[in-house]
Amino acid sequence: MDQLSIHVQLTNHPKEKPAFDQLSFGTVFTDHMFTMDYTEGKGWHDAKVVPYKPITLDPAAIVFHYGQTVFEGLKAYVTQEDEVLLFRPDENMKRLNRSNERLCMPAFDEELALAGLRKLIQIDKDWIPNVEGTSLYIRPFIFATQPYLGVAPSKTYRFMIILSPVGAYYKEGINPVRIAVESEFVRAVKGGTGSAKTAGNYAGAMKAQEVAEAKGYSQVLWLDGKEHKYIEEVGAMNVFFKINGEVVTPSLNGSILEGITRKSVIELLQHWDIPVTERQISMEELFEAYESGLLEEAFGTGTAAVISPIGELFWQDKKLVVNHGEIGELSKKIYDTMTGIQTGKLPDPFEWRMKVEL
Amino acid sequence: MDQLSIHVQLTNHPKEKPAFDQLSFGTVFTDHMFTMDYTEGKGWHDAKVVPYKPITLDPAAIVFHYGQTVFEGLKAYVTQEDEVLLFRPDENMKRLNRSNERLCMPAFDEELALAGLRKLIQIDKDWIPNVEGTSLYIRPFIFATQPYLGVAPSKTYRFMIILSPVGAYYKEGINPVRIAVESEFVRAVKGGTGSAKTAGNYAGAMKAQEVAEAKGYSQVLWLDGKEHKYIEEVGAMNVFFKINGEVVTPSLNGSILEGITRKSVIELLQHWDIPVTERQISMEELFEAYESGLLEEAFGTGTAAVISPIGELFWQDKKLVVNHGEIGELSKKIYDTMTGIQTGKLPDPFEWRMKVEL
Ligand SMILES: Cc1ncc(COP(=O)(O)O)c(C=O)c1O
Ligand SMILES: Cc1ncc(COP(=O)(O)O)c(C=O)c1O
Repeated sequence: MDQLSIHVQLTNHPKEKPAFDQLSFGTVFTDHMFTMDYTEGKGWHDAKVVPYKPITLDPAAIVFHYGQTVFEGLKAYVTQEDEVLLFRPDENMKRLNRSNERLCMPAFDEELALAGLRKLIQIDKDWIPNVEGTSLYIRPFIFATQPYLGVAPSKTYRFMIILSPVGAYYKEGINPVRIAVESEFVRAVKGGTGSAKTAGNYAGAMKAQEVAEAKGYSQVLWLDGKEHKYIEEVGAMNVFFKINGEVVTPSLNGSILEGITRKSVIELLQHWDIPVTERQISMEELFEAYESGLLEEAFGTGTAAVISPIGELFWQDKKLVVNHGEIGELSKKIYDTMTGIQTGKLPDPFEWRMKVEL
Repeated sequence: MDQLSIHVQLTNHPKEKPAFDQLSFGTVFTDHMFTMDYTEGKGWHDAKVVPYKPITLDPAAIVFHYGQTVFEGLKAYVTQEDEVLLFRPDENMKRLNRSNERLCMPAFDEELALAGLRKLIQIDKDWIPNVEGTSLYIRPFIFATQPYLGVAPSKTYRFMIILSPVGAYYKEGINPVRIAVESEFVRAVKGGTGSAKTAGNYAGAMKAQEVAEAKGYSQVLWLDGKEHKYIEEVGAMNVFFKINGEVVTPSLNGSILEGITRKSVIELLQHWDIPVTERQISMEELFEAYESGLLEEAFGTGTAAVISPIGELFWQDKKLVVNHGEIGELSKKIYDTMTGIQTGKLPDPFEWRMKVEL
């Protein structure tokens, strides 16, 4: 699959670019987008880069009714040498195909999608912000388009990639967040869709977030759906704890999203010879570690924030203040290393970066 | 709220109507649709009936990414006297608002929505099929329209109602279905979104359905997400069992959809003085009843099929053949009574029908 098979149509009306030092998240989109269509019997076809424009769908399109849709999120960075770097984009495409599988949606050619992404970025390269902490957020997504009210997998789909220049996640230094441990709502359960990146998981999670925010917390810590005992994720991030010198993260049990930042952090810790374990960890155990003074650090991992230190956990009327509410030494080191690799400031011993030819 | 506040724009290009004796489900739509928009700060506005036409949305609209969307399904019937009847439409609007609540979506005025629905049906009344067993399927739905990639409730929404003339569910008499008891996948869990009618529940359920179909079963029987022991629903229907003269259906536990057919069947049975209980029921208990010869009938309930008798349940390599694979006496009586009331052939002692003035 080469980029020649991707048809390009450029816009005649380039938009005005926003000020790169005043960007927020996910509100501004670039001049172009990548699209590709699927038709049963024919497969994926018509891969192209076209001007960013509205989607037009029949009101009966399956995505509106039965939510067959999957997505990804990753970032492109421009280096001080004006090179454009993607962070492990092949992992995102692999995960997108795994999500497809769970949602009865058709697999796509990952190489072709990556070629489409590179082509799109080449065309919209001037939209990549170059201010410290900013990046170009990339949103590949696929949705069911067949107009049909029967509950069955769609026979037609659309694959799209849109791009959004986003501001620095931490505008005033990394401030640890206060997290409420969720005791009523459940994000996902084994046998459900939790390990897929699909719309319904996020719609279902909004209520808990709303309740937590009303109580002054910025995210929820999700517990397992069966026993409400074991730690799963934090907001839309994976979660890590440093307990008595060891790093622990919940193992992939079928309801947790397999984060690419999570995977990278584990590889980084192993590289540093810092003990890291993927295993089941209960809130009870975490609380005991806290009580014994052994809970040293806690942080979330995800593409948006990279590392989000946790300063406080609220659980059953108990407050667990982690590291005096400040970012821990290891969290900081991971953050600096990860963002250093992503932005080209540090070497890339793991070959995580993919350079986009301009 | 009166119907005068609903603006009407009629089509200039009425479509050709399908042959009413050859209809399938959910593929053909009428000439018009009802729409209404929500804007934060302004509330719901611009209620109108307009020609059926495509939806145009920004690619970043929240519905495509985070699945904030809810829906309903109900039916209109034309009687032998050419009256148009709706079956408990107020219950659907109430449930739609309950679904809204779970999905952090704004409540709407149920009276206004019902007025909009009546107006729409008046305009498209010639689309209501009059062949035995057919009906006009009604699909109200609401979805998030704000172009924003942050995971947060949308600030704008659209409410729509579309109509689809549908064929008889049972074209050759009621044939009981063969059901596989699902042991791996989970539809919903307490604390999740199972009791809301929202897209993600249906997307997540397709995989189990696909696996069951490949094994020759037409639907799955869902067990609870915690212990995989207790019976929840069958496909997209509620489920009832007649055991030793008593009717039992799983109680509303937070993960089961509160079906309007379910509710009506319970009221009907009570009216007939047939013992009916809403309670937890395990697959183990059902199997024991079967072994002792006490499992007399089993059926699903839902708007599409009304009553769907279960002829066989496949569970852990065991086959439970119910009533020799034939429709039971009580199932048949419920079916005849429910459809008789719905279509105006029988009196309506419960005042379930709403007549649409033409
Ligand atoms: C539910 C959930 N968990 C975890 C993550 C972290 O994954 P990643 O590190 O690949 O961004 C995400 C998304 O980014 C997510 O949506
Ligand atoms: C999951 C599910 N359960 C049960 C039902 C039955 O509900 P009702 O009788 O209101 O149609 C439906 C839908 O119709 C459903 O989608």
